[in-house]
Amino acid sequence: MHSNPKLALILSLGVFLSGVAARAIAAAPAAHTLAELLAASTERDWRPLDPEQTLYLELASGRVVIELAPQFAPLHVANIKSLVHAGYFNGLAIVRVQDNYVVQWADPNEKEPRPVPPDVHDVAAEFDSPTRAQTPFTRLPDGDVYAPMVGFSDGFPVARDPKLKLTWLVHCYGMVGVGRDNDPQSSGTELYAVIGHAPRHLDRNVALVGRVVKGMELLSSLPRGSGEIGFYAKNEAPVPIRAITLASDLPAAERSHLEIIRTDSPLFTQLIEARRNRPEAWFLHKAGHIEVCNVPLPVREQNAVAVQPPR
Amino acid sequence: MHSNPKLALILSLGVFLSGVAARAIAAAPAAHTLAELLAASTERDWRPLDPEQTLYLELASGRVVIELAPQFAPLHVANIKSLVHAGYFNGLAIVRVQDNYVVQWADPNEKEPRPVPPDVHDVAAEFDSPTRAQTPFTRLPDGDVYAPMVGFSDGFPVARDPKLKLTWLVHCYGMVGVGRDNDPQSSGTELYAVIGHAPRHLDRNVALVGRVVKGMELLSSLPRGSGEIGFYAKNEAPVPIRAITLASDLPAAERSHLEIIRTDSPLFTQLIEARRNRPEAWFLHKAGHIEVCNVPLPVREQNAVAVQPPR
Repeated sequence: MHSNPKLALILSLGVFLSGVAARAIAAAPAAHTLAELLAASTERDWRPLDPEQTLYLELASGRVVIELAPQFAPLHVANIKSLVHAGYFNGLAIVRVQDNYVVQWADPNEKEPRPVPPDVHDVAAEFDSPTRAQTPFTRLPDGDVYAPMVGFSDGFPVARDPKLKLTWLVHCYGMVGVGRDNDPQSSGTELYAVIGHAPRHLDRNVALVGRVVKGMELLSSLPRGSGEIGFYAKNEAPVPIRAITLASDLPAAERSHLEIIRTDSPLFTQLIEARRNRPEAWFLHKAGHIEVCNVPLPVREQNAVAVQPPR
Repeated sequence: MHSNPKLALILSLGVFLSGVAARAIAAAPAAHTLAELLAASTERDWRPLDPEQTLYLELASGRVVIELAPQFAPLHVANIKSLVHAGYFNGLAIVRVQDNYVVQWADPNEKEPRPVPPDVHDVAAEFDSPTRAQTPFTRLPDGDVYAPMVGFSDGFPVARDPKLKLTWLVHCYGMVGVGRDNDPQSSGTELYAVIGHAPRHLDRNVALVGRVVKGMELLSSLPRGSGEIGFYAKNEAPVPIRAITLASDLPAAERSHLEIIRTDSPLFTQLIEARRNRPEAWFLHKAGHIEVCNVPLPVREQNAVAVQPPR
């Protein structure tokens, strides 16, 4: 009668979310689990994070690793790099944690805000961008409630509108975006990460600039703010940010050496299918479908042989 | 250049998730925000929680309120009530917190498990149930990646298959389900709540038995377990459960008196539309669509005049 807690609900899925492929799905019915596919992966199935496009958000509890997406938001990413180089975020704080929504960091001192470097200005909205033929796009086969097409490009979850010829990053768990007020322009001084069910109504309303690839639990388990829309109230201490640094600015010994699954590989097509129709014995009903924000994107330490599969 | 953190990213959406309507959407283009609609709501738009179908999960940090769904899982709900009446859960613990997935509670003592009451046995799978004509169903207009139809019944997010004539609860944020091992039967001694992006691949694989209507943040902000699939490791203390009680077993003064929006009301149709196409000035792009797990289900204190709108 007592089911074993170690066995019960062994269903896994994303500690680190995202990543997908669909092209050859019909031709590749899954017989293997995600764990088996990862165990059989080769070096060619992984790519290292580019230190020039990787941020470390350092908290007392540890390091949050963010991969930037300059191909989708070049102006904001340039701003954020300038801010990081100037040490702008060091000593600022997480000021808002709204349950099932976002963690947001900014300058908590509204009266005497920290100056920004002279090369950082509000830049034009980067809510979507023209679809480029050379951008890889691994399309998911099961559609989407919000967009005509969804899939993955360079490891990021994206949507496309073929009529408008536009592509945009979508708000899955762990995506990082730029806070703004009612003006569509923004600078990048306030950033947020999604910590709940994908708030897809934000798509095309903010510049998404990257994705947390490791350390999400350091953000998602923070105490929720009791103020309006999750801002920390006066009696609640904001969570200090020790520093945000660019990986390439640190000596190699201080970097996190991570690799991410390639989303334009045949292996990824198999991973998708292993998630659309879970081969694990626990699954009595096979979903037969998958939604873009439910696709795990495995991450591993560089030169690791195996990887712990996500949920 | 500095956007005001209090203004930036004012996008709101569900502290408490779920709830919807679609019938008259085409006839009721939204001009009002969710906040305005709630402010104009009347008593008839709300229903009190039934104390016979309401659980209180008591933690040191506060109370988590769960509404049971006996109409969808009568056997498991009966079991859970027997367990609660016998004090089965009192002094047990939260044993698993997997980021972006589930919080799970059970008997942490595997070697000498607590006895269960004699009337509690493993019961048949309650993964879906025949669609009943009398069950209200407020269908969402924008479809779903996983199921032929989605919407809300009695305040719960559901999917339907008209060909199979089946209805089932779906795994949105805050839904509560019954852990099981590979056997499709289960008793209800191990329960979990969804704390991340909706793991819809679990639909029709477990008996969902209810939904957290208040206190989700007490679960979602718990430290993640470092063991396999989020179980607390030996060096991590499980989170003690003081008690789980049925509201009707407590004197009125000790109950939480909550009301939930009615999901079969004309107001709810307007709420959905106010979320499909957000009228707030901040939203430059109107999504024009909504997904079942992105629909907020407002909750308020009984006899409250106003309610703080969710995100």
